[in-house]
Order: sequence, then C-alpha cells, then structure tokens
Amino acid sequence: MRIALDAMGGDRAPEPIVAGAIQAVQADPEVSILLVGDRDRLEPLLAGTPETRIEIVHSAHVVGMDESPVDAMRKKPDNSIARCWQLMAEKKADAVVSAGNTGAVVAGGLKLRRFLKNVRRPGIATLMPTAKGTSLILDVGANVHPKPSHLFQYGVMGSIFAKHIMQRENPTIGLMNIGEEDGKGHDLAQRTNELFANSPFRERFIGNIEGRDIHRGTCDVVVTDGFTGNVILKLCEGVFEFIMKMVANEIVGPLPNDRAIAGAAMKQLVARYDYSAFGGAPLLGIDGICIICHGSSGDRAIRNAVGIAVQYARERLNEKIVAEFEGLPAVRDEE
Amino acid sequence: MRIALDAMGGDRAPEPIVAGAIQAVQADPEVSILLVGDRDRLEPLLAGTPETRIEIVHSAHVVGMDESPVDAMRKKPDNSIARCWQLMAEKKADAVVSAGNTGAVVAGGLKLRRFLKNVRRPGIATLMPTAKGTSLILDVGANVHPKPSHLFQYGVMGSIFAKHIMQRENPTIGLMNIGEEDGKGHDLAQRTNELFANSPFRERFIGNIEGRDIHRGTCDVVVTDGFTGNVILKLCEGVFEFIMKMVANEIVGPLPNDRAIAGAAMKQLVARYDYSAFGGAPLLGIDGICIICHGSSGDRAIRNAVGIAVQYARERLNEKIVAEFEGLPAVRDEE
Repeated sequence: MRIALDAMGGDRAPEPIVAGAIQAVQADPEVSILLVGDRDRLEPLLAGTPETRIEIVHSAHVVGMDESPVDAMRKKPDNSIARCWQLMAEKKADAVVSAGNTGAVVAGGLKLRRFLKNVRRPGIATLMPTAKGTSLILDVGANVHPKPSHLFQYGVMGSIFAKHIMQRENPTIGLMNIGEEDGKGHDLAQRTNELFANSPFRERFIGNIEGRDIHRGTCDVVVTDGFTGNVILKLCEGVFEFIMKMVANEIVGPLPNDRAIAGAAMKQLVARYDYSAFGGAPLLGIDGICIICHGSSGDRAIRNAVGIAVQYARERLNEKIVAEFEGLPAVRDEE
Repeated sequence: MRIALDAMGGDRAPEPIVAGAIQAVQADPEVSILLVGDRDRLEPLLAGTPETRIEIVHSAHVVGMDESPVDAMRKKPDNSIARCWQLMAEKKADAVVSAGNTGAVVAGGLKLRRFLKNVRRPGIATLMPTAKGTSLILDVGANVHPKPSHLFQYGVMGSIFAKHIMQRENPTIGLMNIGEEDGKGHDLAQRTNELFANSPFRERFIGNIEGRDIHRGTCDVVVTDGFTGNVILKLCEGVFEFIMKMVANEIVGPLPNDRAIAGAAMKQLVARYDYSAFGGAPLLGIDGICIICHGSSGDRAIRNAVGIAVQYARERLNEKIVAEFEGLPAVRDEE
C-alpha cells in the first residue's frame, strides 16, 4: 500500500508531516510512503530514522495555504499537491494524503482524475465528535453550488463510508435544514428531502435535522451543501476554542485544591476532541483515494489520515460506491 | 411604552412568560404590558400580583411551536401572535415580543405590517456571546433565499443596532464565508462582498470571515443568509450542550476535593452563556418593533426581551434605519 503524502502542505509543514509519516509506517508494516516535497528540506528530517519504507519524491513548488487554488495550480506546475495526484494517476501511489490548501487539493483531483462512474460531483466528508461517538458530515467545502442530486449522492456515498469504515451496520442519514418538518428550508433542501424520501434510501433517511442535532449524534451521516458544511466545521472549532477558554478561566483556574487534576483532565479532553486530531476527510466520489487533513494537523493527525487512506483502500470503498450507484435509479434535477 | 407580549408562545408557556412580564414591569415604571392569550389560563397566573400595568388581551387560539406558519395563520385567525401584531397595527402597542413559533411571528408581521422605507426584506438579528463580549448575527432565519442587496441591507441595519443598542461606536461588519480572501464562496457571498466593498460602508466592512471567527469576536455584526444563520444559531446551542456535558463528566465529576466549587462555577457559566437567556432577537426592517425569543425562554429571557424592545423604541431605531437608507445609494441585484 503506497501513500503519496504531501510533505509541504499544512500550517507547520514539513516537520509534523514527516513525523506523522514515520509513525504511520511504523504502525503498519504494509504501508510505504512517497514523501512529496522539497528534497533539501525533507532529507534532514529523515536523517537517523531507519525507515526504508519512506521515499522522497522531489517537487519544487509549494502552494500557500491561502493562495488561490486556480492561480497556484497554473503558476506552480511542479507543486507537491499536483505531484501527489500525478503519482496516483501513474499508479505509483494508491492514495493521496494532504494537509495543504484544501481548494488546491480538490482542484488538483478534479484536473487529474475523473469522477467515479455515475457520480456527479465529489464532496469532502469529515468526522465530527458527538454524544454517541462520531458522525460523518459532507460536503464541507468541495461544492458550494450543489444540486439536489449531488446532495442525494453525498448521502449514499457517506453511508457507504459509515458502514465500512465507521462500522455502522445500518447507517442513518439526516439532511441539514432549519426545521424538522418536511417542506422546511430553501429550495435545495426541500428538493433534496424529496429525493431521499422517494429513493431506495428512504429507510435510512431520518429526514431533516437542525444544527443542534449534529452533536447529539442524531444520525450517522449529515448531508449538507459545501458552504453550510464548511461554516459548520469551522464554527465548531471556534465554539470549542471559546468554551474551553471559559472553562479554563472560570472553572479550572479558581479551584483551590484540584487545579492540577482539573487542568490535566481538561488537556485530555482538548486533545481527544481537538478537531484537527480527527485527521482525515476523504474526498468521496473521485476516482482514486484522497484524504484531506486540517491545515493545523500534527503528527498524530497525519498518522490517522494515512490510516484512513489504508482502510479505504483495503475496503475497496470506491468499488462499493460504484456498485451502489449501478443498483440505484438515476436521480435527476428539475431545472 | 406598551408591549404586546405573546403569552402563549414558547415551549413552557404561559407560566414563564407571565413571570417575565411581571419582572419587566417591576424593572421599568414606564413599561406596561398587554398580555395576549387565553384569559382563563392567564388570570390565575396574575392572581396575587399587585401589578396594574399588566392587562390581559384575550385570544382564543395558540400556534403550535412546530406548526406550519402559513397553515396556522389561516386556520387560527384569533391566535396570540396575530393578535399581538394587530395591537401594533392599531397603535395600541409599541412593540411585539414573542417566544412562539418564529415562522409564524415573521409571517404575521409580513402580513400585517409593511417594511420600512427602502428595506427589501426584514431579517432576524440575534446576539451571540464571544471572547470580546457579544456580536450580532443576521439573518438567522427570516429569509432563506436572500439576494445580495438583502444581505447588504442586513449589514447596514445590524450596524445601526450595534451602535445604538450595543453601544459600539464604530461597529464593524463581517460577511460569513468559507475563506477570507475576496472571491471566495458561492455567488451570493461573492456579490455581497462586492456590494459592501463598493459602498459607503466599506470602512466598516472587514471582509469575509469564517466560522471560527464568530466567537473570537472578530467583528460586531456578522452578515449571513437565513439558512446558514439558522444552522449557526442552533449548532452553537448543540456544541455548547455537548461540551458542557463532557466538562461535567470528565473534568468536574472526578474531582476529589473541589467538585462542589467547580460544579457551582459550571452552573454560573451555563446560566450566563445559555443561548436562550440572551433573550431577544429583533426582526429588523419591519415597520414596527418585534423581538423574537427562543422557544425555551424562561422568565429572565422574557424580561430581557421586553427590555430590548423598550430600548429599541426609546432609541427610535427604525427612524434611524430609514434615515440611513435615505442617505445611501440604492443597491441593485444583477439578475
């Protein structure tokens, strides 16, 4: 299993990326990594590690985290993201993992890979912690102008991921909306609701859910458009950061005896629920395997993301997605 | 100052609504309240209070919290929400306050009142706690298919509210988006960004913000469409509930000595940041004053909402909104 890992992508790259790569190969003897980036910067970071399953693939350019994806892809043809996708296109890698500029990762994939058969638009799916464990939410930013058929397909692909990677026997699907009753929300939400309700997936579809339902773990797969999903993802980070600061200042700080104990428990909680630690949002629907990581990913998040890529490949998830769509009636959008 | 208070709206109405009404008149000698609802249920709740500034206005019907607003308004003409709006239309009340079905409150207003001059669509604005105090976010659900001009006007109206009610000398405006750079996001966000950047409000406009910026208090006024805003509002509730449960179980619960102290501090924090306690989201842009409360509002939230309605009236906020739009060039949407 060969993973093309973008060593230059991420807020603190390449150090934590290389550290994550080392952990990933140590954790799984079948994994080897193509570390894509500036050879001069990467070689010293590998010096002294006995790992023979990490190989540097040089690329000259780096896409900035805030750079326009379209501009970057044009002006920097030899960037580490495009090089990762090329390695996959040439069948030298089974999967791409990157903590770089998300827009550029998606743009690179759309340029160099086709969509899976019958898939209309790929979407990024990410895991969120909930009161019951984790839920998958998609799309979180690949597709900001989706059609109802796209959202329907996100539900289908998400539930396949939930079943085989998250081990949910009968994954449930909810549609992000602003009220539970059918007929609520904007046209996109109303028409997507109808598509689910009239499809073979109606048994798994629990209907509309609201913002407060996500963290209650109301369903396994939350379907939404890429704009709302991206706002949700980043908002959760912000609320978490905000509340933990209050907890530190107002609950833990003033404790007379147990401050150290409480502080340690708080640290554990932050580490466990830190959104960047979940590591690994698959780009579902692309012909290939691509795991996108949070820009702030540390070594642990990178190791986790490589693990998800490996699991994705072993489960042959893309073949299952293709088979599922072949068995489903085609969905159409009214114009 | 006469407030028409919907006594039947809210998850636990009418008890906390009546209690909030009593507190509100006690807090402000110039306030009197028209308590709108089922006389037989309200009279016993007022028995024994010496308040002469609360008067019951009977209405026979109650709109259910999950009822379709359109259906309810048609089938239940004598409902407490419509009656509140009528009292305002007849100039018997200066403001409407309701914790009832939000859709029905908005629908009632759109039916019985005009928009303020030059306003294209009213929007609901709500306060959110942030690291720096509070920010105003709008729209949170009145308008799920807004045009760029609507969002621009939300920024204008929100900044007038921020200046005169929230006491911000030079309120800043941010546009909810999925990236900070200009040109990010869907068409609506891109075109709204351009409207702000080319308007006399460009000095106050800090550009696009992302989900994580809200709770950092990056700007005073956050502008977004009613779908995204509603998801944001309810998601914040869900994340807060989720994290506080973890804090209780994993930080406070296991403390050997200070559990009681930490528990009390946690309770205080929850009470202070409980979203329902903020009480009072103005419907900006309607000809009249309308404050919408969370369905779970308790007496304190109702008292706060009445206080905001009074402040809104005293500041003559609607006159300031009309004057502002008269001084602004008209904004147009490309079709």
